[in-house]
Amino acid sequence: MIETRLTERFGLTHPILSAPMASAAGGRLAAAVTRAGGLGFIGGSYCDADWIAREFAEAGNEAVGCGFITWVLAKAPSLLDEVLARKPRAVFLSFGDPAPFVDRIATAGVPLICQVQTLRDARHAAGLGATVIVAQGAEAGGHGQARATMTLVPEVADWLAQAHPDTLLVAAGGIGDGRGLAAALMLGADGVLVGSRLWASEEALVPPAMHAAAVAATGDGTIQSKVMDVARRLDWPERYACRVLRNAFTDRWHDDPVGLQAAVEAEAPKWAAAFAAGDPQGANTFVGEVTGLIGGVAPAAEIVAGMVAGAEALLDGGWRR
Amino acid sequence: MIETRLTERFGLTHPILSAPMASAAGGRLAAAVTRAGGLGFIGGSYCDADWIAREFAEAGNEAVGCGFITWVLAKAPSLLDEVLARKPRAVFLSFGDPAPFVDRIATAGVPLICQVQTLRDARHAAGLGATVIVAQGAEAGGHGQARATMTLVPEVADWLAQAHPDTLLVAAGGIGDGRGLAAALMLGADGVLVGSRLWASEEALVPPAMHAAAVAATGDGTIQSKVMDVARRLDWPERYACRVLRNAFTDRWHDDPVGLQAAVEAEAPKWAAAFAAGDPQGANTFVGEVTGLIGGVAPAAEIVAGMVAGAEALLDGGWRR
Repeated sequence: MIETRLTERFGLTHPILSAPMASAAGGRLAAAVTRAGGLGFIGGSYCDADWIAREFAEAGNEAVGCGFITWVLAKAPSLLDEVLARKPRAVFLSFGDPAPFVDRIATAGVPLICQVQTLRDARHAAGLGATVIVAQGAEAGGHGQARATMTLVPEVADWLAQAHPDTLLVAAGGIGDGRGLAAALMLGADGVLVGSRLWASEEALVPPAMHAAAVAATGDGTIQSKVMDVARRLDWPERYACRVLRNAFTDRWHDDPVGLQAAVEAEAPKWAAAFAAGDPQGANTFVGEVTGLIGGVAPAAEIVAGMVAGAEALLDGGWRR
Repeated sequence: MIETRLTERFGLTHPILSAPMASAAGGRLAAAVTRAGGLGFIGGSYCDADWIAREFAEAGNEAVGCGFITWVLAKAPSLLDEVLARKPRAVFLSFGDPAPFVDRIATAGVPLICQVQTLRDARHAAGLGATVIVAQGAEAGGHGQARATMTLVPEVADWLAQAHPDTLLVAAGGIGDGRGLAAALMLGADGVLVGSRLWASEEALVPPAMHAAAVAATGDGTIQSKVMDVARRLDWPERYACRVLRNAFTDRWHDDPVGLQAAVEAEAPKWAAAFAAGDPQGANTFVGEVTGLIGGVAPAAEIVAGMVAGAEALLDGGWRR
């Protein structure tokens, strides 16, 4: 048993949250993580009210949370009401200013979890009253910035200890097994957020060929780039880039985003069609550097149990070799 | 006492190596780290035989190692003979192919330590017979690539366990206190390499204003860039960039390396003069993201002792908060 302030405060068995990965984290994955003793999140971005209704229904009676890309939510803020009406275990906001949503979430009595990528944003989110700060390193899959988990977590921990000692801290980015969980606890985190490793679960909404590409890749095979967002015509703020598996698309365009923009009328539908077809060469596979530690796709419960068992063994002195 | 395969194999008290930081790590720092129970390294790059003679003399009778930037050493390979003649405790090679130097180092009976930034290079170096692989994440100060410590270390550990189980593994990048040391051990490392935190020691060859800039900075204040190497007219291979404190120089040129190249006749002497003067605005301060954890300049022995004490407390269960 790994008991932390996170397990106590949220009544969890394990200090593990699943990342609200847009399109990949539906109700089935979120419910499986909660059932396994962690806290699962539905990824409520790039979607509509129907998708949210369906995925909360998939989660059944399990207590799950829901996450949003903050700047996307700002364009369709009523989605937050859809989620709050379903009494989520927590609302998770990342990538943008959470301030406009804080009051509605607090009024609903729902804990707010803010994911940040810099110390500066951690300060801002803690000042807004977030219950949990998730400090996300750039090794993470999907969007992120530049700071690494190894330094961001202890730096945020030091600042919270001084300024907001009751605010919880969760580490994200590069954590996919018991070693990562144990390391995060050493760095001062109360728990971990797991993205890529749970993306590679049976319950995630991920096409088989993309799962296979991630299992085959080493951690050297990812890239942080903006060209996927150009191809998707998504207005991501300048400071965020996205980590994916390198492929023919990024090889062609990563160094030429201006050229891609000029060719976007032709390239956008090609990328979209490849993504819909689950083709990891034509579209990108959204996974982080931890892909090099993923040996296969497994049920989420098995992944959570394996992480905990691995970390417990290390924390009991198993790091001595 | 933190005993690992690294302390056993090298007869150390603590599993801590100091980074052979070019120009900053002279004999005084290396000797202080060895005297404190770790293994200290002289940074033998961008220098000549006289500098090496002087810094080995500064180290006195302490057993220290010496490190080289491999592609720089390739341009003046006789420096390796200067070092080997002084019976270093180890030779440390980073940034480039160590193959041309392996035989001379082995013939001298000196252990070879290879620092790598990717799994691919770890495989190459282990295949060449390195005694220690240092897996360096991009959060490190100075030159590096893109992988993060959090994922590179366990991935290299898994591969070494299978292919070269006797090769030791050291984690580098973002490690500046007991939390980082304890986390590295959880990730599968036999020890750590400490750069920035020992750069901020009394024994390092660093101007006071640059020390002060690093102490004042948060980890958000660094940038990985190539424009310092343009200004220094150094032919760094394309894949390496350098992490420094952001300042007026990087604000001006980071996004315009072509413009800097065009202006290099004027800019190079300005940067060089500022560096010689220890001016952290005109030239750059070579420190990593861990700068946000550095509260002040201290003697190297105190830094080493503090890291060990902090890690021991965590490993004894102090991570429970």
